[in-house]
This record gives sequence, structure tokens and C-alpha cells, in this order.
Amino acid sequence: MLKNISKIVLSTALMVGYASVAQAEMSREDYAIKFRRGGYTVLGWYYGPLYRMAKGEMPYDKALFLRNADYLAVLSKLPKDGFIPGSGAGETKAKPEIWSKSDKFKEANDRLENESVRLAELAKTGDLDAIKVQFGKVQKSCKACHDDFKNKAD
Amino acid sequence: MLKNISKIVLSTALMVGYASVAQAEMSREDYAIKFRRGGYTVLGWYYGPLYRMAKGEMPYDKALFLRNADYLAVLSKLPKDGFIPGSGAGETKAKPEIWSKSDKFKEANDRLENESVRLAELAKTGDLDAIKVQFGKVQKSCKACHDDFKNKAD
Repeated sequence: MLKNISKIVLSTALMVGYASVAQAEMSREDYAIKFRRGGYTVLGWYYGPLYRMAKGEMPYDKALFLRNADYLAVLSKLPKDGFIPGSGAGETKAKPEIWSKSDKFKEANDRLENESVRLAELAKTGDLDAIKVQFGKVQKSCKACHDDFKNKAD
Repeated sequence: MLKNISKIVLSTALMVGYASVAQAEMSREDYAIKFRRGGYTVLGWYYGPLYRMAKGEMPYDKALFLRNADYLAVLSKLPKDGFIPGSGAGETKAKPEIWSKSDKFKEANDRLENESVRLAELAKTGDLDAIKVQFGKVQKSCKACHDDFKNKAD
């Protein structure tokens, strides 16, 4: 289904006429790479303040933490949709294990999603001690997936 | 506040050690541009199948439509966070009117967000006729903002 969806998105982009020339010339696989990179960029944007608040490097702001944690709970689900078959080459740091050990990759994604949902739940309480502990679990789930499935910066 | 948040995200990215060399060398403004471009890419990815289902170009799948509409209702809120002061130059098609007519830009964003939330509500009903009408409103809100605030592809 993912293959079909991405094909459809690309052709739609052409029809709707909002796509740049570069995107119009992009293969389905390159578009998937662009999508998931965009997804991680957006996720990282909202993760940053959560990190600093959890580590005491900026003042804890309950409303801001809750907003970003709510976004993270959704955003954590998205990038995986872009790891379509054949999209392991090009502008990507994806390791082949994403596809050769897809069960493990799914587990790693599930862990990030579940820990993020739990963080968003805790963020409602404003219990900073519990939030810090849970943030550590989110952070570990990021690192575990990066260690196993992402090449280092070149 | 947005200025502070993006500054914080960037410095966090450095500390956490996940940022690529390119991102580490990126200015706050370029990072904001990267973020919002990523946001629109992700939004477009989920918008595509909604478009095709609403236009009858692919079979209507209630669950898929609802999932993507739910994502759109969240994703429509995000890219505006990246239009920080001073981020109108560089790899961006943003028109200066985003900052010089910020009230109008906010209205255009609000419209997209509100129409997207309404679409997600209707998606639960599975009433395809009503969904098609509402999708047209989402589409118009995209186009209106592109017409007024986005330069054409170069």
C-alpha cells in the first residue's frame, strides 16, 4: 500500500501544480527520502525544547512542553511511512538493516511512538520528575534506532 | 518566543550530537527554512491521497482518508512556526508579505488549520459528498496562501 500511496502523492503533486520542477523530476524513491528527512527535521524541531526543559537547560514551561510533546506523539509515527522498498540509496543515511531486519526496525519505531505517547500523557500532569524520567526513555528510543539503523554523518 | 525556541533547538541539536555537519553549520534562519520546507513536504505527502480520493482518482478508503485527514489537521499548524524574523532569504519561496502583512498571513494559516480540522471531523462520518465539499475548502485555503505568500517555482 505504501508503494501505491507514494506513487499517488507524486502524481498528485504534478497535477495540483504546487510541486517545484525539482520535485516533478524526482523518482518515487527520492520523494520518499525527501519526505522522511523532512519528517525527522520537523520532529527534531519540536524535540529540541523538550530536551532542554527535561535537562534543566531552559525553564520548564508546562504549556510549551505539552504542546511539543503532543506534536512529538504524532510526528513520531510519520517518517517510517517513507521507508519504501528501494529507497535505501541516494541522499539518505538509512542502513540496509531497515529492510533486511524490518521486524527489528518496526520494534524500534513502535518504541519511539509508545514512549512519546506516554510523554505526552505525563506532560498533562506537570509532574516534572516523572516527565524527566519519561523523556529519558524517549531519548533512548531515538538513540537505539540511530545506532542500529542510521549511518553516521558523512 | 519563536526566536528563542529555534535558537534552543539548534544548540540542542549540537549537544545531542544527532545533527549533521551541514546542520551544525546552519544559521538559525536557515534551520527555520529547512524546518518549514520539511513541514510542507510532510503535509503534501499526506495531502496527496486525500486529493485523489476527493477527486475520485483513487477509490475512497474511509480509514486511510481519516488517518491522513487527522495528520493534516495537526501538520497544518506546524510550518508557520518556522517563519521567524529574518528568514525570508535563502532557499525559500517565501514572499516578504509573510512578514509585512503578518495579520493576513495569520488569517491564511488559520483558515487552512480550521478547514483541515473540519475535514478530519467529517472524515469520521464517511459521508463522501460532504467530504468532497470540505476538501474543496481545504484546497482553496492552500491555493489562497500560495497565491499571496509564495513565489512561483524558479
